[in-house]
Amino acid sequence: MVGCARRAPQYEWMVPRAWYNILPDLGGALPPYLRPDGEPVRPRDLEVLFARELVRQEFSQERWIPIPSEVREIYLTWRPTPLVRARRLEEALRTPARIYYKYEGVSPPGSHKPNTAVAQVYYAAREGAGRVTTETGAGQWGSAVAFAGSLFRVKATVYMTRSSYLQKPYRRVLMELWGAEVVPSPSDRTEAGRKFLSEDPNHPGSLGIAISEAIEDAVRSGARYVLGSVLNFVLMHQTVIGLEALEQIRYFDDYPDYVVGCVGGGSSFSGLFWPFYYEKRAGKAERDVKFIAVEPAAVPSMTMGEYTYDFGDTAGLTPLIKMYTVGHTYKPPPIHAGGLRYHGCAPTLSLLVSRGEVGAVAYRQGEVFEAARLFAQHEGIVPAPESAHAVKAAVDIALEAKREGRPVTILINMSGHGLLDLQAYDEYLRGALADVVPTAEELAAHLARVRELIRGKGVR
Amino acid sequence: MVGCARRAPQYEWMVPRAWYNILPDLGGALPPYLRPDGEPVRPRDLEVLFARELVRQEFSQERWIPIPSEVREIYLTWRPTPLVRARRLEEALRTPARIYYKYEGVSPPGSHKPNTAVAQVYYAAREGAGRVTTETGAGQWGSAVAFAGSLFRVKATVYMTRSSYLQKPYRRVLMELWGAEVVPSPSDRTEAGRKFLSEDPNHPGSLGIAISEAIEDAVRSGARYVLGSVLNFVLMHQTVIGLEALEQIRYFDDYPDYVVGCVGGGSSFSGLFWPFYYEKRAGKAERDVKFIAVEPAAVPSMTMGEYTYDFGDTAGLTPLIKMYTVGHTYKPPPIHAGGLRYHGCAPTLSLLVSRGEVGAVAYRQGEVFEAARLFAQHEGIVPAPESAHAVKAAVDIALEAKREGRPVTILINMSGHGLLDLQAYDEYLRGALADVVPTAEELAAHLARVRELIRGKGVR
Repeated sequence: MVGCARRAPQYEWMVPRAWYNILPDLGGALPPYLRPDGEPVRPRDLEVLFARELVRQEFSQERWIPIPSEVREIYLTWRPTPLVRARRLEEALRTPARIYYKYEGVSPPGSHKPNTAVAQVYYAAREGAGRVTTETGAGQWGSAVAFAGSLFRVKATVYMTRSSYLQKPYRRVLMELWGAEVVPSPSDRTEAGRKFLSEDPNHPGSLGIAISEAIEDAVRSGARYVLGSVLNFVLMHQTVIGLEALEQIRYFDDYPDYVVGCVGGGSSFSGLFWPFYYEKRAGKAERDVKFIAVEPAAVPSMTMGEYTYDFGDTAGLTPLIKMYTVGHTYKPPPIHAGGLRYHGCAPTLSLLVSRGEVGAVAYRQGEVFEAARLFAQHEGIVPAPESAHAVKAAVDIALEAKREGRPVTILINMSGHGLLDLQAYDEYLRGALADVVPTAEELAAHLARVRELIRGKGVR
Repeated sequence: MVGCARRAPQYEWMVPRAWYNILPDLGGALPPYLRPDGEPVRPRDLEVLFARELVRQEFSQERWIPIPSEVREIYLTWRPTPLVRARRLEEALRTPARIYYKYEGVSPPGSHKPNTAVAQVYYAAREGAGRVTTETGAGQWGSAVAFAGSLFRVKATVYMTRSSYLQKPYRRVLMELWGAEVVPSPSDRTEAGRKFLSEDPNHPGSLGIAISEAIEDAVRSGARYVLGSVLNFVLMHQTVIGLEALEQIRYFDDYPDYVVGCVGGGSSFSGLFWPFYYEKRAGKAERDVKFIAVEPAAVPSMTMGEYTYDFGDTAGLTPLIKMYTVGHTYKPPPIHAGGLRYHGCAPTLSLLVSRGEVGAVAYRQGEVFEAARLFAQHEGIVPAPESAHAVKAAVDIALEAKREGRPVTILINMSGHGLLDLQAYDEYLRGALADVVPTAEELAAHLARVRELIRGKGVR
């Protein structure tokens, strides 16, 4: 945190000057996004929604994309973020494993999300947009957009899932403090919202529905839409995390055997592991590093879903995207890791999981909070419920290493802090935490609808 | 935040290896603490409560006191903390002034408090204590002690003012997550608590009452008492803030004309300004730096109180301390800056204020939150309500500099973040913020009682 021009100048070099784009290193093209008619999406189709520069980045085959100085100047107010060795956690586990965490919770909104929010709002402003729209679950993404909006004087309209809007008012207050307009979703502002409200006036909402509303609002009004995950350019903006981590872990004369992160859409995990993937493919990796994606058992897209074309949202307004999905009609249980309540995951990540280049595991909410408490009591930092999934996986890997007597190195992404999720920890401490997961039958039904959806579009 | 051994080794040097003790530089002895009979307190009187090493530090005339490696190792997990130039705030104010803030909110508990909590709990553990007791208002101090307790495996019992316990449950959850026992004060666990409860079963509590309970508990049980402010050793532990700031601001080729901080007991402000005071007295200061203490108009000890002997707590269990006070019987209004709801202030700070070496100003809650919103919208960081007092003073100095066309440099202590105070910001945004301040008559009545108290003890 001292490491930058607006802090102490001598650390500025540590913050990357370019983002890493994985597309040229995937060893083959990504399956195209498809329009409802089954035809591939063209860049200009996306320019209805996104800043042109972001659409260019989405399809770019350049490996390194320069970070605009205006964006990097903002990064420098909290970057480089800490890479910390969790010595006390290691001691508590009596493991020979070395556990490091890259801590993104030091950003003003408290998560990794501003890494891309600042970039997206900057490009929107540069292309003349006076307003951006977006969705948010627990509020991590929405508060990052509100923060970015306040920096570039761009109005932010945030559609927030109603369940979070009602249960977690503090991130709403944070967004309003930064000048954003926060709308509980489903709302009566959009056709999509009105449709879901007519079905259920007390609809708790979902990330998929909120995406539908934010997109509809942007298309109607000409505002620019900003997205918190899934698409290539979003994940690419997050690579500042991994690029810093590559430098930092070498200061410890170490290198990871495992790079572990939680996955909702996949942006924080991709931001951390892409640069290590690049080194691995380029033969620069010092070890045969493995990549482990961790998802909630309540929304098991990678571990129980299918790798197929599906909509990115619930109302079906987005292109069809080939990804691991449990079906866009699936309603995720109200787990506290709101950022992981998403039916699909990023197409780049899905491709790598389908090839076995990235492993996936799922954990239940209860065991995740148990690991989070262990981490908080030994390392002091309270993990966001999302990030706690990575902690749980790291603890399991460390205990396995103990059984096998292997001194492996584990790097996890502590993508955010949980100071605005203490209500959830209170439920955990009081033994009042719900822990609902879907049945195989329930998932099968949603996946059958996905097959129905894509039948006849001539896609696989 | 990258700056340490457990982060990236090359920044470790920036974290001090010794605390700065102002006592030898005060140009005269501090008025002694007095026992109820008017006799000076001897070190062994304090050893009933505090770890012996802390009592030694309290009376030490050594200018530099080494930081134990076990304590420094913990500091290194979040120190050095950022020194940030608030460029966007400067631009918003259109001021020629340069405004820097030293940001202590990056510590796990989110404030400067662990700088001394870690040291005090370490010494207590080293001297064999299995439990520590303390008090907390809004919870900043209590959560720092809970954090330190979890690191050294020492049980922490925290007496929390009932109003905060009920209105601000999240810091309680944070303390419990770290393994502390949190007791709403006044409680039925102590004679002091029972006395106040008998007067008012719904007594909102006060910092002074909570101190009385924590002290009584410690004396009865043999646990060690840890204190969040006021005493010399507490303020000395905070000098890591100012010692880092001295190094950091020189990286900007700058030096402060004004060092500004909020004052409850005075520890965060003293931690920042003492090292600059040392340079000024030693003739090393690059400018004629001024020190500005900022207090809430709701508890105006320095601006409307008297410099006289008074108890440090409400029940009268502490020694008599010569300090600026509004009277230990005064009940502070329930302002959100719970850490500033204290009737007195540190004896070292009081001495310097009485000599005119430190200036004091007071602000009302409403104008303080207005300044905090301005800061949040331009700098992104949400100030703790306590720290926001320093922001308000800095804004006023910067606007005066604008009128006078003077490019002065202002350094403020951003002693903590306000992410657990968003309820207060919500009240502010909704225009529902109370703004109560005492009348001169009200204060005169309490001060008369103080004069009554010390009459006949042969003290002045």
